[in-house]
Amino acid sequence: MRKRSMDELNRKSAEAFREADKIPVMVVLENIRSAYNVGSIFRTADAFLLQGIHICGYTARPPHKEIKKTALGSDEVVTWSHFANAGESITKLKAEGYKVFAVEQTEGSVALQLVNRRRHEKTALVFGNEVTGVEQSTILLCDGSIEIPQMGTKHSLNVSVAAGIVLWEMIREHIPVL
Amino acid sequence: MRKRSMDELNRKSAEAFREADKIPVMVVLENIRSAYNVGSIFRTADAFLLQGIHICGYTARPPHKEIKKTALGSDEVVTWSHFANAGESITKLKAEGYKVFAVEQTEGSVALQLVNRRRHEKTALVFGNEVTGVEQSTILLCDGSIEIPQMGTKHSLNVSVAAGIVLWEMIREHIPVL
Repeated sequence: MRKRSMDELNRKSAEAFREADKIPVMVVLENIRSAYNVGSIFRTADAFLLQGIHICGYTARPPHKEIKKTALGSDEVVTWSHFANAGESITKLKAEGYKVFAVEQTEGSVALQLVNRRRHEKTALVFGNEVTGVEQSTILLCDGSIEIPQMGTKHSLNVSVAAGIVLWEMIREHIPVL
Repeated sequence: MRKRSMDELNRKSAEAFREADKIPVMVVLENIRSAYNVGSIFRTADAFLLQGIHICGYTARPPHKEIKKTALGSDEVVTWSHFANAGESITKLKAEGYKVFAVEQTEGSVALQLVNRRRHEKTALVFGNEVTGVEQSTILLCDGSIEIPQMGTKHSLNVSVAAGIVLWEMIREHIPVL
């Protein structure tokens, strides 16, 4: 069980990443307060070769010192664009054929382990503010909502952890042979 | 898709959490540099009703201001203990019947989506330092290693995001009906 070296990990160059066929999953960030969380989500989007990120509302966007600190350069390779609010992002995504899901604890939300995304299905996931979550008005624009089952005492997970878990679940059955 | 209120989430009280049957998954933290990451992992361990956390080496431990900031009180309910090094933790876990896996990119590591933990199987996961990962000497004490497949440009994920993803994968097939 020798640890593999950086070279042995066979990661993509920035150019190879840009040219690669992406997994058709988009991340929508609505009013995320912490730029560290944004950077961490960029890093996850890079690792999972995702289509891109829509940065909405007052969510910090690159170039940004705190994003850079947790993104470690992934903010320079993952495609992103900014929208005044999540509604504008969702309108655009739906026009492009995406199914859009709020990650939120709502009446009728689907438990994450029961979601079955097909390989080529265009899926967008909306993650909301650290304290208030996805806005109710935004949830109503979505095709559904997805919930991470939680059995403890606290009401939610850290948003970059929640994003990691949900995005992993979207891709876990569709990972190319490494 | 009305957002549920805090009350409607039906979370456990601290007392109910302590008395609940836990999912037999232990988290081992080896020389984690950032106390914020430790707090975030406490929050995940709370949400997933895990057995507990072994805090090893120079990893920060409660009570700690920065842990508190990201744990949001979960550091007061999740069981934890401190070990001088991960080796001492692993020796104890093995004596208690745990299978111990390093989360690391090694020769022969198993891709996360291929791991099948059975419901009552005692499993411990070792997460290492943000920059250097799990120590090679610690990996050699483990029963195996588990790797999160990554297809992008960067060599790793944030450790609290990686922990969220791996711990989710350990419990996703065994979630009690909510």
